Amino acid sequence: MITSSSSAKLKMIRQLNTKAKARREAGCFVLEGKKLFEETPPSLRRGVFMSESFVKENPEIYVAGACDTEIVADRLFASVCDTKTPQGILTVAAFPKWNLADLTEGPGEPLILVLESVQDPGNVGTIIRTGEGAGVTGILLGEGCADLYSPKVIRATMGSIFRVPTVRAADLSAAIRKLGAYGVRSFAAHLDGKNEYTEEDYRKGTAFLIGNEGNGLSDELTDEADCLIRIPMEGCVESLNASVAASLLMYEARRQRH
Amino acid sequence: MITSSSSAKLKMIRQLNTKAKARREAGCFVLEGKKLFEETPPSLRRGVFMSESFVKENPEIYVAGACDTEIVADRLFASVCDTKTPQGILTVAAFPKWNLADLTEGPGEPLILVLESVQDPGNVGTIIRTGEGAGVTGILLGEGCADLYSPKVIRATMGSIFRVPTVRAADLSAAIRKLGAYGVRSFAAHLDGKNEYTEEDYRKGTAFLIGNEGNGLSDELTDEADCLIRIPMEGCVESLNASVAASLLMYEARRQRH
Repeated sequence: MITSSSSAKLKMIRQLNTKAKARREAGCFVLEGKKLFEETPPSLRRGVFMSESFVKENPEIYVAGACDTEIVADRLFASVCDTKTPQGILTVAAFPKWNLADLTEGPGEPLILVLESVQDPGNVGTIIRTGEGAGVTGILLGEGCADLYSPKVIRATMGSIFRVPTVRAADLSAAIRKLGAYGVRSFAAHLDGKNEYTEEDYRKGTAFLIGNEGNGLSDELTDEADCLIRIPMEGCVESLNASVAASLLMYEARRQRH
Repeated sequence: MITSSSSAKLKMIRQLNTKAKARREAGCFVLEGKKLFEETPPSLRRGVFMSESFVKENPEIYVAGACDTEIVADRLFASVCDTKTPQGILTVAAFPKWNLADLTEGPGEPLILVLESVQDPGNVGTIIRTGEGAGVTGILLGEGCADLYSPKVIRATMGSIFRVPTVRAADLSAAIRKLGAYGVRSFAAHLDGKNEYTEEDYRKGTAFLIGNEGNGLSDELTDEADCLIRIPMEGCVESLNASVAASLLMYEARRQRH
């Protein structure tokens, strides 16, 4: 049992929870709570940490954690958690690994979301979760997006982080062109779009380009799009929340495909 | 100019920013930033507070604030703000006032959102903003919802708080029945829904019932609905974010009506 707050393992968890650089270097991230422990594929599990009282109350989960599990003294457990009311279980997992080709695979036509610089972790997480629900084949993220493996993103994905292929691309324009070579047509959500988003056809391979929360899509990426589409807005609304805009587009594609 | 941190006015702003009870008693709330100052209808404005440097950099806004404006010493300004990087301008506004009949007014058929106990302020704010974009005629909120006038809700609405009629109802079931008497048909987003949400007709008066983030809609409110509808979800997704679900429904109604 870990009883010292200076334990190297607890230090590591604190670092993984707070620093994107530490996560990148270790290739690992932390998931809090029972549900996310269960959602983590055993092949990616690198360690499980449970508080003393959690083990007492959930002996069956202690057994499921098997030899990966370390018990942490109750008084120390909260200090390594990101949430205010920790459940008493943390999982350390390796990053799932995908490449651009994975985004176009799956039983049906590709349905891809391209996020240029969505900075809010809650938005990124919600988009991944909704993406799974809408049946996307993958999500492509630009360098300016929130770190995929920060605690807030992970919480908002509710486990989808392991099931929706995600790829971070240094050169988003080049990646979109590659997707084009796989036959994927790209649609940019843009105020200048001629047609409303419900008026285009997404039944073949489709990628939706979503820009930054405040500034929308850059001119550079807008130029890469095959087609600009517009989400209509009544009243004085000038833009929608990035995760709302992405959700409307993904579910419109789903509606057309079913 | 206000130069003392114990100024009664600054104390009041701090209270309005942090306590729902203080807001209810005063019937007022605080809006941060230039955009929200501009969005506040002058008839609801009860006071404007600008930092010294803001006034120097934005003399035209100082003039627009007219005799309502108080200048606050730079070193004190941040202490009364909720945001981490304050813009230097705060507006105190009276609650806009609406009643149930206002929700069904407007040029077209009523399109109403009923939120049972959406607790996340970001979700409530995003729903109001998206609601304006989708053209809802109003939003009805149960007692369990986040306080409409908390800083986080206000920020997420981006000014829609003044344009979308909102009504808080102690007895949501009774309110839904009253809406029914106005000819509004109610649809509950529910896992037990027989038809997908895209298969029902929302061109006549429509209300969508949205439940709590974690628990969905209560049985009591589900029973009030004229029809249960289902948002389809692929993969292992068990539910969608409340603001995503609400947005999909509102924009589907908009699509059908145009």
